Amino acid sequence: MTKTADAADLQKISGLIKDIKVAMLTSEDGGHLRSRPMVAAQKDFAGELYFFTRASAAKVGEVQSHGSVNVSYADAERQNYVSLSGTASIEHDRRVVEAHWSEAMRTWFPNGKSDPDIAILKVSVEQAEYWDAPSSTMVYLYGYVKAVTTGRPPQPGENEKLRIA
Amino acid sequence: MTKTADAADLQKISGLIKDIKVAMLTSEDGGHLRSRPMVAAQKDFAGELYFFTRASAAKVGEVQSHGSVNVSYADAERQNYVSLSGTASIEHDRRVVEAHWSEAMRTWFPNGKSDPDIAILKVSVEQAEYWDAPSSTMVYLYGYVKAVTTGRPPQPGENEKLRIA
Repeated sequence: MTKTADAADLQKISGLIKDIKVAMLTSEDGGHLRSRPMVAAQKDFAGELYFFTRASAAKVGEVQSHGSVNVSYADAERQNYVSLSGTASIEHDRRVVEAHWSEAMRTWFPNGKSDPDIAILKVSVEQAEYWDAPSSTMVYLYGYVKAVTTGRPPQPGENEKLRIA
Repeated sequence: MTKTADAADLQKISGLIKDIKVAMLTSEDGGHLRSRPMVAAQKDFAGELYFFTRASAAKVGEVQSHGSVNVSYADAERQNYVSLSGTASIEHDRRVVEAHWSEAMRTWFPNGKSDPDIAILKVSVEQAEYWDAPSSTMVYLYGYVKAVTTGRPPQPGENEKLRIA
């Protein structure tokens, strides 16, 4: 079931998540699992995810005490779903902030990249799973028809579980 | 910041999630947080969420050993995001399965509601958070303009944190 990710796998995940601007980051907070929308700050995926955050935000404290997080991407239109499990850390290094900055980030950080309260929440991904359907409507319909005619559940796309070395 | 949810709050959350057919359920698995798409099986939200699952699925074991889960709903088009934190349990009671069954579920469970491997994964929600933008594009643009003209971050919708009694 689980295999170690190779370059093609990383490219596949990169392709699935690149058009999903907002991911849900789940972390542990006093026994509860909480999630919140995060705006992705990187174009390509090579095992690490980068999000901008306020250094003073509550989630920064949460990930510092419980580093295990999940980042999920849901694209309802294409019926693509990705789960990335990993360890979060906070980067205060201004060079890291500047390397990921884009002007679109001014929506959330109007003072620009020199704002001292901006930090990077970095997730080092250890496990990845994805569900993708090349054409969701077709697969859904095909799956439904196939399910009722054969009595077997449909295979709506692929489900690969990857371990990222 | 946190208030106890009243009927209007539950209705608000119900409205935000009712058109999002697939939620991401995050649970803990051997130190990792994993998420997977789940098809919602209820129409209205009154503090509990119901999903169909195979009784033999790996996630059933995960939620039985670590009941704390998060259910996140992302509607990228409307820029609505909901985080529901709670405790999961598995209902094998056939009356519960039948009460939530709809024929659309045959896509995933072709043998119908009498399949003995069908169970209900129920989440009793304890905390809710949501981010909603009545008109995402307008708010995004307004927020961006406001951010660059006033130097203050935009308020893209509301962010309410609720405790469900």
